[in-house]
Amino acid sequence: MSQISVVMGSTSDWPTVKLACDILDEFGVDYDKHVVSAHRMPDEMFAFAKSAVANGTKVIIACAGGAAHLPGMVAANTPLPVIGIPAKTSALGGMDSLLSIVQMPAGIPVATTAIGAAGAKNAALLALQILGTSDPAIQNQIVEYRQKMHDQAVESEADLG
Amino acid sequence: MSQISVVMGSTSDWPTVKLACDILDEFGVDYDKHVVSAHRMPDEMFAFAKSAVANGTKVIIACAGGAAHLPGMVAANTPLPVIGIPAKTSALGGMDSLLSIVQMPAGIPVATTAIGAAGAKNAALLALQILGTSDPAIQNQIVEYRQKMHDQAVESEADLG
Amino acid sequence: MSQISVVMGSTSDWPTVKLACDILDEFGVDYDKHVVSAHRMPDEMFAFAKSAVANGTKVIIACAGGAAHLPGMVAANTPLPVIGIPAKTSALGGMDSLLSIVQMPAGIPVATTAIGAAGAKNAALLALQILGTSDPAIQNQIVEYRQKMHDQAVESEADLG
Amino acid sequence: MSQISVVMGSTSDWPTVKLACDILDEFGVDYDKHVVSAHRMPDEMFAFAKSAVANGTKVIIACAGGAAHLPGMVAANTPLPVIGIPAKTSALGGMDSLLSIVQMPAGIPVATTAIGAAGAKNAALLALQILGTSDPAIQNQIVEYRQKMHDQAVESEADLG
Amino acid sequence: MSQISVVMGSTSDWPTVKLACDILDEFGVDYDKHVVSAHRMPDEMFAFAKSAVANGTKVIIACAGGAAHLPGMVAANTPLPVIGIPAKTSALGGMDSLLSIVQMPAGIPVATTAIGAAGAKNAALLALQILGTSDPAIQNQIVEYRQKMHDQAVESEADLG
Amino acid sequence: MSQISVVMGSTSDWPTVKLACDILDEFGVDYDKHVVSAHRMPDEMFAFAKSAVANGTKVIIACAGGAAHLPGMVAANTPLPVIGIPAKTSALGGMDSLLSIVQMPAGIPVATTAIGAAGAKNAALLALQILGTSDPAIQNQIVEYRQKMHDQAVESEADLG
Amino acid sequence: MSQISVVMGSTSDWPTVKLACDILDEFGVDYDKHVVSAHRMPDEMFAFAKSAVANGTKVIIACAGGAAHLPGMVAANTPLPVIGIPAKTSALGGMDSLLSIVQMPAGIPVATTAIGAAGAKNAALLALQILGTSDPAIQNQIVEYRQKMHDQAVESEADLG
Amino acid sequence: MSQISVVMGSTSDWPTVKLACDILDEFGVDYDKHVVSAHRMPDEMFAFAKSAVANGTKVIIACAGGAAHLPGMVAANTPLPVIGIPAKTSALGGMDSLLSIVQMPAGIPVATTAIGAAGAKNAALLALQILGTSDPAIQNQIVEYRQKMHDQAVESEADLG
Repeated sequence: MSQISVVMGSTSDWPTVKLACDILDEFGVDYDKHVVSAHRMPDEMFAFAKSAVANGTKVIIACAGGAAHLPGMVAANTPLPVIGIPAKTSALGGMDSLLSIVQMPAGIPVATTAIGAAGAKNAALLALQILGTSDPAIQNQIVEYRQKMHDQAVESEADLG
Repeated sequence: MSQISVVMGSTSDWPTVKLACDILDEFGVDYDKHVVSAHRMPDEMFAFAKSAVANGTKVIIACAGGAAHLPGMVAANTPLPVIGIPAKTSALGGMDSLLSIVQMPAGIPVATTAIGAAGAKNAALLALQILGTSDPAIQNQIVEYRQKMHDQAVESEADLG
Repeated sequence: MSQISVVMGSTSDWPTVKLACDILDEFGVDYDKHVVSAHRMPDEMFAFAKSAVANGTKVIIACAGGAAHLPGMVAANTPLPVIGIPAKTSALGGMDSLLSIVQMPAGIPVATTAIGAAGAKNAALLALQILGTSDPAIQNQIVEYRQKMHDQAVESEADLG
Repeated sequence: MSQISVVMGSTSDWPTVKLACDILDEFGVDYDKHVVSAHRMPDEMFAFAKSAVANGTKVIIACAGGAAHLPGMVAANTPLPVIGIPAKTSALGGMDSLLSIVQMPAGIPVATTAIGAAGAKNAALLALQILGTSDPAIQNQIVEYRQKMHDQAVESEADLG
Repeated sequence: MSQISVVMGSTSDWPTVKLACDILDEFGVDYDKHVVSAHRMPDEMFAFAKSAVANGTKVIIACAGGAAHLPGMVAANTPLPVIGIPAKTSALGGMDSLLSIVQMPAGIPVATTAIGAAGAKNAALLALQILGTSDPAIQNQIVEYRQKMHDQAVESEADLG
Repeated sequence: MSQISVVMGSTSDWPTVKLACDILDEFGVDYDKHVVSAHRMPDEMFAFAKSAVANGTKVIIACAGGAAHLPGMVAANTPLPVIGIPAKTSALGGMDSLLSIVQMPAGIPVATTAIGAAGAKNAALLALQILGTSDPAIQNQIVEYRQKMHDQAVESEADLG
Repeated sequence: MSQISVVMGSTSDWPTVKLACDILDEFGVDYDKHVVSAHRMPDEMFAFAKSAVANGTKVIIACAGGAAHLPGMVAANTPLPVIGIPAKTSALGGMDSLLSIVQMPAGIPVATTAIGAAGAKNAALLALQILGTSDPAIQNQIVEYRQKMHDQAVESEADLG
Repeated sequence: MSQISVVMGSTSDWPTVKLACDILDEFGVDYDKHVVSAHRMPDEMFAFAKSAVANGTKVIIACAGGAAHLPGMVAANTPLPVIGIPAKTSALGGMDSLLSIVQMPAGIPVATTAIGAAGAKNAALLALQILGTSDPAIQNQIVEYRQKMHDQAVESEADLG
């Protein structure tokens, strides 16, 4: 029973989604991951979303591209916060994914992050921040993670040559 | 038991969708119309889509705006052809609706028409053309409808003054 | 005498259009395919469109890029449903193709699918769904095709490693 | 027999197109004007384009909006230079009209002007410049017109208060 | 000491932000609200963000428009989850606000909602969902809120006339 | 003394502009070509534009990218028709070039063609069409060129395999 | 002999440009203002730009819309810093103005501010900041101006009610 | 104590920013360069901006990409002119960077240059032009630099072959 569920519309999203999972691994927070296609597996998607609370999930991360319906449809079927990662797309760069995820109608939010790799990493961090609102240990980990990012940024100046 | 089902995500889409219904009325083809919100009524939406074939529906028209998931999610739950009307939106003009509807992944098409009023009228005509592939009377009506449009266009030149 | 006609504005669209034809082959549904350039072969294009009903065609698929006039001009010359595939373009990613195809004025719809490869595949499936409205065997094939997609999606989860 | 033909896809384009005609009137150059809808009157459109040379037309101005096929399809049917005015549209501001007109494939150019009112005026001036390449009187009129614009611009500074 | 802090870059954002506050009021969840301009009050902004954890805040909602730096800069100064509402803008419809908020670099997420009114309402609901991950009463309220939305949507069909 | 002048803002535009020159060569119509940078050689640009009529030029083709001011500034300094080719750009695909060229204010038109290679070829053809308005031989060449394009398009169908 | 010159392409830009002038007035810094149309008054524009240094001008502010060539062409003719204000436009919201001004090629920068009113105000402030690099009194005024903005922003919170 | 400070949000911006530094080197004007991440090093960023006047800096150049907050947040913390370079981005080409930098609210300008390489070079030249408003030697260098650019442009015509 993991607190975070990570779903993607297709295995083609895995290279992006893996960046989120790597951060969850780094934080040592359990998660489960699934292929849940909104369009090819609609029933499984609904079942997944509807059972999330009972499964003990607290936050859901969903990645999809193009007419990206997965994050919003999962969100419509659970009271849990859902984080949406817009996948980069070859024709429109991911603008289609972004608008399909972020422009949700009033009532059903999707917490949208950036297109592609940065968005995947940030989806993991956002999920951890959400857990951190009631788990001081995770919130501390966020603080430490940022300190490390900070220090690396400071040190990186030496690379300008 | 009507051959065409017209659904919309919200009554706020009705002024647009009504333009489709007016054309169906003009052709004398039966249709049923429903509010079926992908996000607020997901179960009803799935039930609607899954029962459409058994109900005798042959074509579905769905209108939605913003992160417009209704046409695509209906399409994912029925083998019937689904026509999507992207509603015009105040912030982005309907570009969000358009991309959310048209950029469907391989496997589940949505037959997308233009943003807003023209798209609503054309969704009705497209549904009729689809019925017309097996119903010569409706195909004839399309031909006549076009002849009338043609004649009106020709006559409109007199209005240039 | 095939029920589906597939046309493209140029042989440069063939790699995209072939994806549609592959699906039609997979379904075992006859089709004919042609290069019909709206701009370089306007008379042949009109002749093609005007003769489609008499030729027994039921659905037309048309692919074009840039100022993509082929789907709309074919649609203007036949009462048959016309499906438009916006080709991806190098400068604007296919946004030009998409808007040139989908933004048809009231009266003459084009059933538009996604930009590029996904749109080509979906154009074939949409054509088959349209035939399926009066041909239960094809509708059954759609149901089976989806079941296969569904099963592959479910199984693909094993690839996440 | 006028040297310039002005066509529009619909009488709804007339308020824009009239701005072009006003300039042609001001220059005292004859023109004929017509409603020629690419989609509702395709045969008349082709007939119009194909007969233009024989009718003594030297330049064609065509205005259309949305999936604006009129300028490009006229251009495909005449060796005369065709000037395209992208009409402003309510959903996308005219970006759809612009891309549908300007992004013509190699072989069939459309001389595209700005979206809306400025584009209509400039279409007239461009047509006159084209006539001016072989008619020194018209070229002189262009020079004088510009001198007047210049003087008005210079004098307008007094309005800054 | 309220669990939710709502900040905006300018009082001109208040009509939008008020829609979020109305929902928080409806849920009976305490919140504080402030004008905290990233550009005109940078020190107060930093002080606000840095003190949020100590103040007992659990979630921050930030609304800004144009080059909307407020949500991201607050996020950079607190380990708490920050929700960003892109304000609608007159020139670009809010596309500038959206990209300035959502396209955060890896490391510092902003949970972005839709442009304008829908985004404001959803920001409140998302904040409540986040609190709901550790507060079953609030999660129950979300479930009830959705049930009400659902019922209203179902009943709204009667308005189609 | 050539009838057509071809100018570009930088030698980096030459691979694009060469496509125009190749067509002019194919038609056997004389032209001169120059690097005339609006920003780096403003005086030469003005001198070029102002002397064009006296030099016997009848049509000017200008290619530029990004904030592409060359076509419009040349147009402002000559009563001759000016054709603008928007160069493709790496960041925005040429949308910047296109809008900088096509959105000319009322009074000074630029006859804009498509972004990049197709636009370059069409600029040449448009220039020839303009000359053809008073030179029947060139108009005939256009007719023949189109016939050849037509025949090649017809024959290309054999390549579909 | 004023240190700042403010130019606009047309009196229609004056309502926007006046917002810049109001700030210059508030700071008590002299400026001159002119209508200098790049397209209708190219010679005066060049003369203006070329004489700016000799006239004692230190910074130039230029506002234009659409294919906005004024700021870049002035910049090409003076070594002074040129600030460009993209005017809002009715069809594309000012995206055309923005790209035409900001996307200058390497060699000739234009310091671009936001579209419309905010950009006009900021153009004035930027010009003052530039003067402030060598005039401590003006730099002090900037500091005071910001303090006032800051205080007003702080006090505005009382308006949230 | 250098007159120009060059900052970037990440070492990944260095290949772009280096183009600015190369020009500053070529002019022999001292500058310091730093990695100052708005999001990972907010305190250092504020300290940097707040100390810039005291450090003798006269102009700041800041490069960032995506939700590019660095230029605007530096600008909010110093009365010095700040020049913003929008970094090119992989998903949206740099449109996100551009809008995040240029669309600053009234009160805090950022002098924005073009996306990517051209913008970096122009940021350096703009900084030098600003110094040149009070340093005739630098203004002379600008004049000479332009003369060289001019001569190279003139000579480049020989490369057209």
